[in-house]
Amino acid sequence: MTEESKTMSNFTVILVQPQNPENIGLVARNMKNTGFENLRIIRQRELDSKSYKTAVHSRDILEKTRFYSSLSEATGDLDLIFAATSKRRKNFPFLSLEDAVTKMFEFPPATKIGLLFGNERTGLTSDELLSSNFRFAITQSARQPSYNLASAILLTLFHIYSSTGLKKTQISWEKPISRKEQDECIQLVLDKLEKKKFIHKTNKQHMTEMIYDLFGRLAMTSRDKKLLLALFSK
Amino acid sequence: MTEESKTMSNFTVILVQPQNPENIGLVARNMKNTGFENLRIIRQRELDSKSYKTAVHSRDILEKTRFYSSLSEATGDLDLIFAATSKRRKNFPFLSLEDAVTKMFEFPPATKIGLLFGNERTGLTSDELLSSNFRFAITQSARQPSYNLASAILLTLFHIYSSTGLKKTQISWEKPISRKEQDECIQLVLDKLEKKKFIHKTNKQHMTEMIYDLFGRLAMTSRDKKLLLALFSK
Repeated sequence: MTEESKTMSNFTVILVQPQNPENIGLVARNMKNTGFENLRIIRQRELDSKSYKTAVHSRDILEKTRFYSSLSEATGDLDLIFAATSKRRKNFPFLSLEDAVTKMFEFPPATKIGLLFGNERTGLTSDELLSSNFRFAITQSARQPSYNLASAILLTLFHIYSSTGLKKTQISWEKPISRKEQDECIQLVLDKLEKKKFIHKTNKQHMTEMIYDLFGRLAMTSRDKKLLLALFSK
Repeated sequence: MTEESKTMSNFTVILVQPQNPENIGLVARNMKNTGFENLRIIRQRELDSKSYKTAVHSRDILEKTRFYSSLSEATGDLDLIFAATSKRRKNFPFLSLEDAVTKMFEFPPATKIGLLFGNERTGLTSDELLSSNFRFAITQSARQPSYNLASAILLTLFHIYSSTGLKKTQISWEKPISRKEQDECIQLVLDKLEKKKFIHKTNKQHMTEMIYDLFGRLAMTSRDKKLLLALFSK
């Protein structure tokens, strides 16, 4: 599949009987942050106002949330279910988060994927794990505590989001000036320093190298160049 | 550097005036999940009992938390400061989270790295950003909402944690001098420039920011400091 073709709208987050309404709001916010929009909740009829309180700028996700009385109803129209679990269970081998996400992207783009998360206290029961295609666990440093529900979901969604190839556009360093221009700037500074006798015959080689190194590390932009030339003309 | 040598104990999470005590507990839990232990808080004297409530299995981190009245006190004995920001600011170019973490691993293992996070509502102010060497932002799907404080920290720590086992590039930088020494050096240069009337009342704010940014990006070593002070004493 190509990078562009997998979109977050093919994913659905499914919560089984969450007990903390604030968590649902946090999940909505995490979904918004990472570009997901489909939320389903099992064994709960409606949302508590506390959920709306933590769903900063994510009300729309809560408003579209769908409620189901059973797991099979909630997953029936999706294609693959990936279940998050923190416990190793005899009959349920599991993938790392990274491998699970890799796997998700091995299926055709139109594949509808459900991401299943259990209750805060119990996690997913063996019964609930049954109806998943793959189980995955998020590595953690110590045995205890496990990730909190909203945190586990955030890490999962962020990893998927980061894998779509849609990201990284807005963040970037400013473009450096051409290497030629950088050299010219450094040379001007060196000339200045030589005139000031800061650089002289005996230290010239060494100082030149040090200043090239120092200025090189800046990956100089045109703004930097202006600043440096101003600094060194005084 | 070798795989074993970079450990999470060289990292310190620094919170500037967090306003929600539950968040501090969540941060502690996130730190525990990902293997970090050093937490510092600025402009707060002690912990609220609400913080302990959300710090599931992470009490020890809260008990070791250190409190500071200013940013410079909290960062002085660390070597490099990476500040999280969600806003693009004119004088502060920033890295992606991924690139920031790559950069962290390019420095020698003993380098003490501070991860700086601002207040929930305001983020880091321009003033607070001044004393950081690098700024980074976590990609997000929509402009609003920004990541919640504990979420931003979780994503950052998880990314570092996930990167510790991986073999990193051969690039390695010299160990920077402590942030306090960096600040002192920058201050000496600023004083010099003010005496020379290069910096004056009307451009002071702007020039100060530009010079802090420029020198921060150097991740100054003791050799750099000597060179810079020599350069600017002429």
